[in-house]
Amino acid sequence: MAKRKLRYGMIGGGPGAFIGAVHRAAIRLNDEAELVAGCFSNIKEERDQALEELQIDAARNYETYEEMAEKEGAREDKLDWVDIVTPNRFHYPAAKLFLEKGINVVCEKPLVFTVEEGEDLKRIAKENGCLFCVTYTYTGHVMTREARQLVRDGVIGDIRMVMGEYPQDWLLDSLDTITEDNKPWRADPALSGRSAVGADLGTHIENWVDYVTGLKIDELCCNLDALSEGAVLDNNLEALIRFKGGATGMYWTSQVAIGFDNALKIRILGSKGTIEFVQEENNYLRVSLRGKPPMIYSRGCGYLTDEAKKYVRVPCGHPEGLTEAFANIYKDFCRALHDKLDGKQVNEDDYGYPTIQMGIDGVNFFNKCVDSSEAGGTWVKMD
Amino acid sequence: MAKRKLRYGMIGGGPGAFIGAVHRAAIRLNDEAELVAGCFSNIKEERDQALEELQIDAARNYETYEEMAEKEGAREDKLDWVDIVTPNRFHYPAAKLFLEKGINVVCEKPLVFTVEEGEDLKRIAKENGCLFCVTYTYTGHVMTREARQLVRDGVIGDIRMVMGEYPQDWLLDSLDTITEDNKPWRADPALSGRSAVGADLGTHIENWVDYVTGLKIDELCCNLDALSEGAVLDNNLEALIRFKGGATGMYWTSQVAIGFDNALKIRILGSKGTIEFVQEENNYLRVSLRGKPPMIYSRGCGYLTDEAKKYVRVPCGHPEGLTEAFANIYKDFCRALHDKLDGKQVNEDDYGYPTIQMGIDGVNFFNKCVDSSEAGGTWVKMD
Amino acid sequence: MAKRKLRYGMIGGGPGAFIGAVHRAAIRLNDEAELVAGCFSNIKEERDQALEELQIDAARNYETYEEMAEKEGAREDKLDWVDIVTPNRFHYPAAKLFLEKGINVVCEKPLVFTVEEGEDLKRIAKENGCLFCVTYTYTGHVMTREARQLVRDGVIGDIRMVMGEYPQDWLLDSLDTITEDNKPWRADPALSGRSAVGADLGTHIENWVDYVTGLKIDELCCNLDALSEGAVLDNNLEALIRFKGGATGMYWTSQVAIGFDNALKIRILGSKGTIEFVQEENNYLRVSLRGKPPMIYSRGCGYLTDEAKKYVRVPCGHPEGLTEAFANIYKDFCRALHDKLDGKQVNEDDYGYPTIQMGIDGVNFFNKCVDSSEAGGTWVKMD
Amino acid sequence: MAKRKLRYGMIGGGPGAFIGAVHRAAIRLNDEAELVAGCFSNIKEERDQALEELQIDAARNYETYEEMAEKEGAREDKLDWVDIVTPNRFHYPAAKLFLEKGINVVCEKPLVFTVEEGEDLKRIAKENGCLFCVTYTYTGHVMTREARQLVRDGVIGDIRMVMGEYPQDWLLDSLDTITEDNKPWRADPALSGRSAVGADLGTHIENWVDYVTGLKIDELCCNLDALSEGAVLDNNLEALIRFKGGATGMYWTSQVAIGFDNALKIRILGSKGTIEFVQEENNYLRVSLRGKPPMIYSRGCGYLTDEAKKYVRVPCGHPEGLTEAFANIYKDFCRALHDKLDGKQVNEDDYGYPTIQMGIDGVNFFNKCVDSSEAGGTWVKMD
Repeated sequence: MAKRKLRYGMIGGGPGAFIGAVHRAAIRLNDEAELVAGCFSNIKEERDQALEELQIDAARNYETYEEMAEKEGAREDKLDWVDIVTPNRFHYPAAKLFLEKGINVVCEKPLVFTVEEGEDLKRIAKENGCLFCVTYTYTGHVMTREARQLVRDGVIGDIRMVMGEYPQDWLLDSLDTITEDNKPWRADPALSGRSAVGADLGTHIENWVDYVTGLKIDELCCNLDALSEGAVLDNNLEALIRFKGGATGMYWTSQVAIGFDNALKIRILGSKGTIEFVQEENNYLRVSLRGKPPMIYSRGCGYLTDEAKKYVRVPCGHPEGLTEAFANIYKDFCRALHDKLDGKQVNEDDYGYPTIQMGIDGVNFFNKCVDSSEAGGTWVKMD
Repeated sequence: MAKRKLRYGMIGGGPGAFIGAVHRAAIRLNDEAELVAGCFSNIKEERDQALEELQIDAARNYETYEEMAEKEGAREDKLDWVDIVTPNRFHYPAAKLFLEKGINVVCEKPLVFTVEEGEDLKRIAKENGCLFCVTYTYTGHVMTREARQLVRDGVIGDIRMVMGEYPQDWLLDSLDTITEDNKPWRADPALSGRSAVGADLGTHIENWVDYVTGLKIDELCCNLDALSEGAVLDNNLEALIRFKGGATGMYWTSQVAIGFDNALKIRILGSKGTIEFVQEENNYLRVSLRGKPPMIYSRGCGYLTDEAKKYVRVPCGHPEGLTEAFANIYKDFCRALHDKLDGKQVNEDDYGYPTIQMGIDGVNFFNKCVDSSEAGGTWVKMD
Repeated sequence: MAKRKLRYGMIGGGPGAFIGAVHRAAIRLNDEAELVAGCFSNIKEERDQALEELQIDAARNYETYEEMAEKEGAREDKLDWVDIVTPNRFHYPAAKLFLEKGINVVCEKPLVFTVEEGEDLKRIAKENGCLFCVTYTYTGHVMTREARQLVRDGVIGDIRMVMGEYPQDWLLDSLDTITEDNKPWRADPALSGRSAVGADLGTHIENWVDYVTGLKIDELCCNLDALSEGAVLDNNLEALIRFKGGATGMYWTSQVAIGFDNALKIRILGSKGTIEFVQEENNYLRVSLRGKPPMIYSRGCGYLTDEAKKYVRVPCGHPEGLTEAFANIYKDFCRALHDKLDGKQVNEDDYGYPTIQMGIDGVNFFNKCVDSSEAGGTWVKMD
Repeated sequence: MAKRKLRYGMIGGGPGAFIGAVHRAAIRLNDEAELVAGCFSNIKEERDQALEELQIDAARNYETYEEMAEKEGAREDKLDWVDIVTPNRFHYPAAKLFLEKGINVVCEKPLVFTVEEGEDLKRIAKENGCLFCVTYTYTGHVMTREARQLVRDGVIGDIRMVMGEYPQDWLLDSLDTITEDNKPWRADPALSGRSAVGADLGTHIENWVDYVTGLKIDELCCNLDALSEGAVLDNNLEALIRFKGGATGMYWTSQVAIGFDNALKIRILGSKGTIEFVQEENNYLRVSLRGKPPMIYSRGCGYLTDEAKKYVRVPCGHPEGLTEAFANIYKDFCRALHDKLDGKQVNEDDYGYPTIQMGIDGVNFFNKCVDSSEAGGTWVKMD
């Protein structure tokens, strides 16, 4: 029998917010859940507009997430999960409230500001038997899953080097318009935390590498810079990485790199081969085996691993994109939710979606980057 | 105020059918309409499964499209449109019935088998005041819209040559498994019409070129072949094209071209510049102006035309794909539907979605290709 | 023991002539022969300049090629070969004179204006025991040799389709400056023959396909156009091809295709795989086998065939280019020359350089293209 | 009047040596100089073979470079320069001897083992009025010259970040065959110096960046690793760079990076734009200006700077490669030599070839990389 449609609420993601809309679209793509409640904005006009656009029950269109947690937590037909897509500083308090009501959480990255906050949420989630997914988008791509499986199958041997980069240039236009009176939350340390580029983009590299290879960073050495006139927060990060076990790597991410849209590119180099993933070409993977011509794997083709094939939606050559990546994460998460509803024992590591531990690792990563950079670029241990 | 959600039904698209599922996903992505009725299959088990999966009212899950047209046509809360995503031979009779009930139609390509059928539908649609969209997917890509606007703005001058190609290789595996008893509809002339590759793929080239440039084919000279053991229908098309007004071109499409997934690629060469669109890299457009370095336009960037920007969903560098292309066509179509509901005069050419005339042109195209090929590759006039 | 240095002369290739200089550079690259005589120009100043630059004996710097043939033919230390790199119309008379003196010939393409002239030269060469090489440059690339060997080894199975294209845009600037009084030889039918683009570029496609696959054209259907204001000779060619044995293909070449430098690209599609060669990326070959991810072969790597490896000069990843392609042809030709000098039986088909028969085939090709186009685009048999 | 042919000798570059043959080929390509003397090998058979192949005077085919310096230095028709293409450890003593004889030097990189040796050579060269070129190949590419001029013209504004990488994988096969008794000089610290990958490849990045941008490294932090079984010398280098003036960067180079042939890639990111150079696609440059679509510059096209155009040999779309890069350096060097012969004041910085100072900077670079790595990856100042 078909599973019942799941119910979710959303905090943040009001009119004009980019990422909230993508989450909702991804969930609709799967058609496994419906939006039934929300606290979309702290501005009345935006809440009204959201109500009209999203067509939820007016009584469940909340002014504050505290009220929402209170009322939704008290319902019999409780939310199956809440989506937190607010500016970063609300992640912790909002997640905490909903977890305490026993509501599962999906939260955008970076999870929180500090490792302590992250550990706190992890504990509360565990105490309340809640699932917790952190939406590191790029783990959702079919070819990320293929890369992960190829690594697990030993296709590229022992990993020796990891080269990760994630340049963008969109911030330049924003910087032009920042004034003391008009400062977006991403330009305000109080609202966005100790690091901008490290938290926003750097965590994607750190997570993708961990997700695909299982490698844990042992120590890092980092340069952070706030480039361009008007910049107050770091927007360029360069780091040397030493992983536990001996592999090394380099991570670069930037928000002021002209000519780069959203150019996440990660190369995993092993003793037997190399895998290259380029987010902007997410339907492909370049796989090179020693002594053989490099191959271009294409999403949807018959030679993919069974693990990757599970997530293929349209045939090869018909591009999937960002929305499908999000949708795949939600597909994993909803499978775990249904298992939980069915009373099964759920080990979140087994479902494919990024866990709260990955969220915490990301927070640890960008904090250590800041520590290193503030100390003049010294090596800093991750623990 | 937010528009009311539109209601649509679907014919075809049962369990396992690729394209019906994509249509539904695209419509969900837009969140402007909901599926309320259907005739998904002529197999009871598949209809039952569809009911469960798609969660429509059991009473509106029909055994035949004739019954569906009859009953849905009689409702007060009539369907806003019906989606026809069946094997090709049902397009004509199904569309006819619904149009006669005054229900707007969205139909997959190739529209029908003959130009006469197409003209017939066009007439009936007009008589019943119905809108009619033919889902030539690739017209929906943002960069198709950009290309169209650049051509209209005269950026590449007068068009001189058009090079269109659309190779795939998926059919090879199917051919291996075809037997007299196990023949998919695409391998059966009675079910799929006079041409397979011309109708399925060739029409996409013909349409994209027409859509973007407005060029009409004057005459063509075509080789059609059924390559590979077991092939009964043409699967390779090569044609010389002469357009009205003097431009020329070459179209190639194949279903047995090893190493090509879904490689639609069209180059429009003009007196001032050239535009290249590659479907598998649908987020980009290569634009070359005389005497200048070629440029890579990226979907979502600030320099796009306003016309293209209307359809951008996620920022540049965050890939959109096939589903968004379909969704953009539905976005256009739903806009026209609302205008019609609002009592406005609707000129279908103004909305951006591919019209029934384009559907007829495609049917004309592939029939003329067959005519030419059957005559040994002679030049055949389009009219 | 090292072979003695061979001696060659050159007709054409004076100051400012592009292709003569490339020939000389390629020969120097091999270091197997030296330039000892020439008739570089019909303009005294240019001859004087050539003498100074090329540092040959003043007595062997001739005013006319007739005089050169006469005097060089009479020497004991005869030229090992003469290089003919003049405008096309001199190819025939010049080659004839030298062959009659028993001097081997290397001639640029297109070989001559008519098949009859070509057959005539072939007969004279045979009668005089002369070798004859036609410098279809692109046969010289290592990856052309690799493609040829892969086809011969059956790697891609039986060939079904051939897609060849060769667009350029350089002519546009020339067209701007053409006047009645200032007309380059390429714009003058009397000097360049019945076809410009067909002879200059089309023959490269025809030859490369023949060279790599051995396929012979059975019949073709062609559109030739003189596009752009000021054009007097054809500059755009589009043709459908039917090969003997059943394979088909499409050839496009243009001199007015904005955004294309020298974009020869040929795809050979077989029953087991596909090979793609792009001249501008001459160090690579894309090879796709059925059901497997496409592979990027890189010149110089260990997995190449032995046949291709013979021509590798620098390690993989260190680009070779146009000059090496020419040099490889000369390497083959000089090997044949030495064998001839050593008294061995020389079968020119065995050495790898393009033969006079290939030159004749090219002449046949472009003449048949003109025949077809002049007849309104009818199918024309090659014989 | 044409300049007289220059005379050069070569040390190293015997049979089988890759780089010596490339130097000679490049010089022949230019046709401005001839090889007249050499000390090609310390093995008699190889010297004999070289004599036969290179056809120099037997009396000038020396057993030792000491003898060669002595005798050649005493001739009236002295060498115009000597080419040093031996294993690294001979660079210093050989260059020293020839400089002391007043013979100009062209030397492969890495120049020497220590900065002190480099400074010593620089002083001796100055004292003897000798020119000194260090053949950093990649400075010779036309598109390197274009990049340099674009930076000088301010096209990309102030430089903020530099991302340089140079992965190869060829060493893996060598490592398989290394034994105690069979150790190539590159695997022997005594013969190749303190660093393998840093000296061989890292210096190319350091030099290209300096050459194109003029940026000088202030300090660096480096990880060096000897990866793969059997490795005795470093083969993977990862470094953070801080330039004088505030720009930063990351350099990665490897000899064990599977799937990479010779993949030097450098991106220069400025306040107004970004330039990307990829050695394996040396005929192109990717240039992105803020707010505009990225452009693909093609070598030979009309829009290039005049400075780059000076070095174009064949038209755009006809690839040049490694040999032309070397040849361009020799073209610059020979121009300086002729100016010196003509009694002009020669400022080596003005000619375009890489100077001895650049050689010293490279030596400083790799030594500082080793210093940093040996100290556990600390920041090390360049001075």
